[in-house]
Amino acid sequence: LAETAVGVREMSKQLGRARIHSIIHSVLIVTKARDNRLIKLTRELAVYLMSKKTDNGRGLIVYVDNQLRTSRRFDAAGIERDHPEFFVPFPRRRTSTSSSSSSSNSNGSSPPGDAAFPKDEGQLRYWTAEMCSRSPHLFDFVVTLGGDGTVLFTSWLFQRIVPPVLPFALGSLGFLTNFDFAEHQSVMDSVIDSGIRVNLRMRFTCTVYRAVAPDKGRQRKAIKKADTGEILMRNLEKGGWEAIEGGWSHITPDGKEEGKKKDKEIMCFSTRPVESFEVLNDLVVDRGPSPYVSLLELFGDEHHLTTVQADGLTISTPTGSTAYSMSAGGSLVHPEIPAILITPLCPHTLSFRPMLVPDSMEVRICVPFNSRSTAWASFDGRGRVELKQGDHIKVTASKYPFPTVCADKQSTDWFHAISRTLKWNERERQKSFV
Amino acid sequence: LAETAVGVREMSKQLGRARIHSIIHSVLIVTKARDNRLIKLTRELAVYLMSKKTDNGRGLIVYVDNQLRTSRRFDAAGIERDHPEFFVPFPRRRTSTSSSSSSSNSNGSSPPGDAAFPKDEGQLRYWTAEMCSRSPHLFDFVVTLGGDGTVLFTSWLFQRIVPPVLPFALGSLGFLTNFDFAEHQSVMDSVIDSGIRVNLRMRFTCTVYRAVAPDKGRQRKAIKKADTGEILMRNLEKGGWEAIEGGWSHITPDGKEEGKKKDKEIMCFSTRPVESFEVLNDLVVDRGPSPYVSLLELFGDEHHLTTVQADGLTISTPTGSTAYSMSAGGSLVHPEIPAILITPLCPHTLSFRPMLVPDSMEVRICVPFNSRSTAWASFDGRGRVELKQGDHIKVTASKYPFPTVCADKQSTDWFHAISRTLKWNERERQKSFV
Amino acid sequence: LAETAVGVREMSKQLGRARIHSIIHSVLIVTKARDNRLIKLTRELAVYLMSKKTDNGRGLIVYVDNQLRTSRRFDAAGIERDHPEFFVPFPRRRTSTSSSSSSSNSNGSSPPGDAAFPKDEGQLRYWTAEMCSRSPHLFDFVVTLGGDGTVLFTSWLFQRIVPPVLPFALGSLGFLTNFDFAEHQSVMDSVIDSGIRVNLRMRFTCTVYRAVAPDKGRQRKAIKKADTGEILMRNLEKGGWEAIEGGWSHITPDGKEEGKKKDKEIMCFSTRPVESFEVLNDLVVDRGPSPYVSLLELFGDEHHLTTVQADGLTISTPTGSTAYSMSAGGSLVHPEIPAILITPLCPHTLSFRPMLVPDSMEVRICVPFNSRSTAWASFDGRGRVELKQGDHIKVTASKYPFPTVCADKQSTDWFHAISRTLKWNERERQKSFV
Amino acid sequence: LAETAVGVREMSKQLGRARIHSIIHSVLIVTKARDNRLIKLTRELAVYLMSKKTDNGRGLIVYVDNQLRTSRRFDAAGIERDHPEFFVPFPRRRTSTSSSSSSSNSNGSSPPGDAAFPKDEGQLRYWTAEMCSRSPHLFDFVVTLGGDGTVLFTSWLFQRIVPPVLPFALGSLGFLTNFDFAEHQSVMDSVIDSGIRVNLRMRFTCTVYRAVAPDKGRQRKAIKKADTGEILMRNLEKGGWEAIEGGWSHITPDGKEEGKKKDKEIMCFSTRPVESFEVLNDLVVDRGPSPYVSLLELFGDEHHLTTVQADGLTISTPTGSTAYSMSAGGSLVHPEIPAILITPLCPHTLSFRPMLVPDSMEVRICVPFNSRSTAWASFDGRGRVELKQGDHIKVTASKYPFPTVCADKQSTDWFHAISRTLKWNERERQKSFV
Repeated sequence: LAETAVGVREMSKQLGRARIHSIIHSVLIVTKARDNRLIKLTRELAVYLMSKKTDNGRGLIVYVDNQLRTSRRFDAAGIERDHPEFFVPFPRRRTSTSSSSSSSNSNGSSPPGDAAFPKDEGQLRYWTAEMCSRSPHLFDFVVTLGGDGTVLFTSWLFQRIVPPVLPFALGSLGFLTNFDFAEHQSVMDSVIDSGIRVNLRMRFTCTVYRAVAPDKGRQRKAIKKADTGEILMRNLEKGGWEAIEGGWSHITPDGKEEGKKKDKEIMCFSTRPVESFEVLNDLVVDRGPSPYVSLLELFGDEHHLTTVQADGLTISTPTGSTAYSMSAGGSLVHPEIPAILITPLCPHTLSFRPMLVPDSMEVRICVPFNSRSTAWASFDGRGRVELKQGDHIKVTASKYPFPTVCADKQSTDWFHAISRTLKWNERERQKSFV
Repeated sequence: LAETAVGVREMSKQLGRARIHSIIHSVLIVTKARDNRLIKLTRELAVYLMSKKTDNGRGLIVYVDNQLRTSRRFDAAGIERDHPEFFVPFPRRRTSTSSSSSSSNSNGSSPPGDAAFPKDEGQLRYWTAEMCSRSPHLFDFVVTLGGDGTVLFTSWLFQRIVPPVLPFALGSLGFLTNFDFAEHQSVMDSVIDSGIRVNLRMRFTCTVYRAVAPDKGRQRKAIKKADTGEILMRNLEKGGWEAIEGGWSHITPDGKEEGKKKDKEIMCFSTRPVESFEVLNDLVVDRGPSPYVSLLELFGDEHHLTTVQADGLTISTPTGSTAYSMSAGGSLVHPEIPAILITPLCPHTLSFRPMLVPDSMEVRICVPFNSRSTAWASFDGRGRVELKQGDHIKVTASKYPFPTVCADKQSTDWFHAISRTLKWNERERQKSFV
Repeated sequence: LAETAVGVREMSKQLGRARIHSIIHSVLIVTKARDNRLIKLTRELAVYLMSKKTDNGRGLIVYVDNQLRTSRRFDAAGIERDHPEFFVPFPRRRTSTSSSSSSSNSNGSSPPGDAAFPKDEGQLRYWTAEMCSRSPHLFDFVVTLGGDGTVLFTSWLFQRIVPPVLPFALGSLGFLTNFDFAEHQSVMDSVIDSGIRVNLRMRFTCTVYRAVAPDKGRQRKAIKKADTGEILMRNLEKGGWEAIEGGWSHITPDGKEEGKKKDKEIMCFSTRPVESFEVLNDLVVDRGPSPYVSLLELFGDEHHLTTVQADGLTISTPTGSTAYSMSAGGSLVHPEIPAILITPLCPHTLSFRPMLVPDSMEVRICVPFNSRSTAWASFDGRGRVELKQGDHIKVTASKYPFPTVCADKQSTDWFHAISRTLKWNERERQKSFV
Repeated sequence: LAETAVGVREMSKQLGRARIHSIIHSVLIVTKARDNRLIKLTRELAVYLMSKKTDNGRGLIVYVDNQLRTSRRFDAAGIERDHPEFFVPFPRRRTSTSSSSSSSNSNGSSPPGDAAFPKDEGQLRYWTAEMCSRSPHLFDFVVTLGGDGTVLFTSWLFQRIVPPVLPFALGSLGFLTNFDFAEHQSVMDSVIDSGIRVNLRMRFTCTVYRAVAPDKGRQRKAIKKADTGEILMRNLEKGGWEAIEGGWSHITPDGKEEGKKKDKEIMCFSTRPVESFEVLNDLVVDRGPSPYVSLLELFGDEHHLTTVQADGLTISTPTGSTAYSMSAGGSLVHPEIPAILITPLCPHTLSFRPMLVPDSMEVRICVPFNSRSTAWASFDGRGRVELKQGDHIKVTASKYPFPTVCADKQSTDWFHAISRTLKWNERERQKSFV
């Protein structure tokens, strides 16, 4: 038994490290489209990739941000002047085969050829957020230029399947940007010629549930056990989950109330899912502009874990352990560890130590009905959503991890990054006197 | 690819939770043999188990501490008087079939029958530490009476394969003692009749390596890269590992020394393993009685992670996250998460945040040659060993996990324990005025 | 020299503890005027105090919240029915003689007699926020009913001189509410008959400075020293202080830029004070609803201390060390220690340990011109003020401390409160198994 | 009242900053006498000071470590050869007036002239630890060469009155060593010509009390109040204090025991003071080589504050806030704040936040009779003393502060030191690309 367990663990590890030798036809470049400096680098990279011959005799198809279509600085017309060959349309006959879909490494790179993109038939094409969310299989590969924020933006663009992502840093390397743009030619050559190894970074699926006023006569009931404080629920339905009416009052250690300790029936509201976000770093629920402290109820797999009185709470992936969770006092957690980090923001107790739970747990953060104020959720720092009393968010490990390309020394990358970027355990070296 | 990864993770999880319906013939009872109160309870439990009929028509074979053989309070003679049937020897003929060995749930419980234990042929037998370490297959099952310390002692007894352990708490439940002795009869009945589910708690194998003075002419060499601080080693041999001579001085950020930054050849010593310990909670390396701060070098998979200037360092399992690591400021980590916790004790820097690395990593703690003092290691609080300059300890996830029996609500047990025992995030409930 | 220093310290300490035997004529009662339960208790207390005879032959003058004037539940008419003697006007002739003496709580207790308050000439009178801010000397004494929030509200009401405050807790005692309302009669008797001892709790004066666009030709200049990062300013004017243009870039430890290290002249803007707040607990500057991290510059006595990249910063009194500062990780600081607590909220570095500076230091928090977003300040949780780029807040120990009445065991009160309210260092007591 | 309080605070502050224009005749140089490099620098400094003319027409009298008397490297004979004038004896006639004693700035620097030191009559003299402890008035001034450890050693030498100390750093400046030896000539010239300003750094007096077996019939009694957990003591004697028998069991929050809550009479032992140490940084009480956790009882002004279950406890001055207390998680506290820092080492609770109490409080750390093991105390890292069950240490602000010479920018020195030495709130500056 023990040996099998070890074996499974090993296998799981190797899986995340397999070298993939797929044929790359199309590359998506993500960058801040408003930063002039970056536009110049994007142009440089795009030209290099379009010149790089692949097995079909032409260079790669390169997708750049649709905002660059008319950018003077990007100067697509200038590229066409210098490299007219990039703009020769691909032959149409293969279009029917490009139904593709399924796999992320499919032949989706073949020219789409539908009427909607008539101008894109050469090697230089333009991507939109909608294309990323609807047709991720169009792209064999994503390259990002910029900081960790650009990588997070890429995660935001691809809410379901994500092509392998190769993040270039400009200047110092970050946690997610482990390739130096100064070496982009050799890095890209190696990727195209020798294939890549990817890390599957866990993402979370965060689903927002809104409270629904109960129909008369169909109200759900729950029993609050007096001796454990647990809530037992009945009539759980698939798509929903029960939000619970106020007063998660724990059993007080005060003997005087003993007489009152009875199982209590609690009026329940039902909730329904309204939207969903994939996050690579973290979900943060805080009090937003409210002057009052947040009151949140935290559940793990339907069990009440604790009542949070704090500025808020962050639920982080290991990848996000060096982001907001770190600021809030969380430990540094290597990205390969399958765990969910629960870290309070400025809690009102002395003893709310950060906690890690298994990634198989369903974590829920509820705004109880007795909360004085609403709460606000943000997803990797974006998409601020207000949570009203009775609403909650369910967090689970996502089915759609985020594949990032490994540098050769992947595992040490992370250690170098925490030393360099966070100055982890760095100290002054005593200068000696002559 | 992504889906497979999720699948593997699921499988791994279920594996640790399978219900095992093995036939139990023999039970080992571990308790503090000097605590009179516990001896009485041990006696009570032993009698109950010996009376409990199994499929062979007799009750269970029960092993109690050899120190109780002559204990007046345990009064084995009194048991014999009241229950002479427990002391009827088992027939010899089945001895040859006890091929046992391999699995922890084998039929090793059949009477050993070798001449060494002539007096043990009835149902009441006596265990010694030696029997636990040499013949773990003698015991189908271990029951502990006492606190978490008794469970740690059990882990100490079984340095290799460990039978499933069912820990009874006397009084309040602890992190490891999740069954209440007050219900021992119904718990034991359920175990014997319906089988058990076990959690495989990770243990660490901690191997102590001692520095060996190098032979002339056979000295190992290592190169210290000036630009990264990394050590590249050559001539690594299987059984050994290179301890490194002094001066892990990091690259200073001081431009003035730039001229001096050269790769440096470092004289190496070889080391050899001398002893090994299995730990369930933690390895602690500290300065012991020395007034000087510890200087330790920390490596992960042959890469230098950091230089530790601190009172010491604790390397903990998730099970141990509520023990010493917690005192030192570490996060609370659910026991199912496969991670190694690295937590410094009173570090001399402001930025030495606790860290978690994957359980697949080999962690080494070295006492460098330039350390002013030696260091001391303890294993689950036991077995204090001095580490001299050049020595190191290698920590890896053990092949021999520690199987503990799950209560029905295993996963909530841990949450209840941290609330109750550590008062995690507990606050005063405001008493209201009339 | 040393002995004198010790002597001064002693004197300072005794001063804060002197017993004051002033004659009390008038009491102000502060409570939440919308809480029905509290209105009832306020009425009860008011009646008791108005019945309590003083040396002028009548009971005390009691001021209650002006909102209660028409409250049915307070029922002033009912009081008049039961106690017509409370409503007999005071004779006018004594007004001129009330020169009274010594203390800051002097002649305010004599009937004001001006035409503005014709109805208030009996013992029951009504206070407004304006009266508190303009005429604190009207009140010899303040009694609060409620929690710590009510005491903070009292501090808010009295922005300059504060009469001695006696805070009654309803239910459990708090940090500031150290008298139990259940004993209000004996407490009030003792106060009136035997005098009081007060603690002078430090408050901060927080002054908001707004950036002013510079006149042409009158621009201030500052020199930024390359080797220390310090800013030397010229032309400092009394009422103003120089806000500084962008880029507090520290000297990088990177030798490569050495050539560029020159003293730099920085364009300065002047600022002017616009409003000022007294706080008893803390000033909090945070990012408010902005999604971006705060960028704040922190100065102590004109010296740049550090650049804050965090969710925000709290500047707390020792009294406030158990409030927001505690949540953010600050130490618990006894209220008698003359210090200013600087505690970051979720800082972006691992090493931003909370800090205490002497209460003689002027602390300034600036929003630099290169900040991406504005910041928001709140004062004891109230009065949210937006700080734009170039604005700053100056924090100094206030000339108007907050005198709270000591219970007999003043110094232990605080220790009891942190044990009870915060469960400081509390642990489970092991229940033993009989 | 309020204004007086502010005034006192101001005065106290200025007092610590007064410029002292005393006439300096004699200087003591402290350094590590075994460090060859330092001997050379000591010689250089001694020669410079002996050459520096004062008002009596000769250079300063310089005391160096008695161990240097015969040091070849120091080469006193060589100095005599080069500067025979240093060795001319001072005239005897003024000896009778040098009774002095009292003040630290007295004329004690005139030649002692007693027969015991016949060889010291020139300018070069030799100090011993005994001279420092018995006759601190011999030295007008102390110069230290080395790191912070050398300053702590100076504090150790002068257990009562301490002459002003000017600490030179070799290499990087430290917390206590705020003058650069590279500028020693100009610094010394300025000191001698213009006088100095000193900071009076608080020290603690730590007095060790040993338990004394009680005489029959004269046993002390104490009452333990059931409702507050406080201990009321009777028969307190001046020189002694009562150590208390076992079981500081707090009131459990468990209603079941309510019936048992009675005031309890506790058997007391008396204690007597046996030795006393002055510390500049901290007192640390820990478990020493014991494998068991420390059990300590902490008292403030005779009130029980808490029971410590931890690796130990550190009681630090603000000066020591950057030493051990920092490692244990304490805040950084500016040296001018009059406070006592209480910081636990690896406590067994989640909620044992570090605490600051006023420097007027008497803090006691007791090893209770029910402790499983003894504890060990060290004083500024020295003088390890074992505390047995029943022993305790009393910590109070010392009557003998430690005067250190201020650099011109005294208050910023500390801030620079925490940035430089501890990298407080330092972060990587993003290197930008091109």
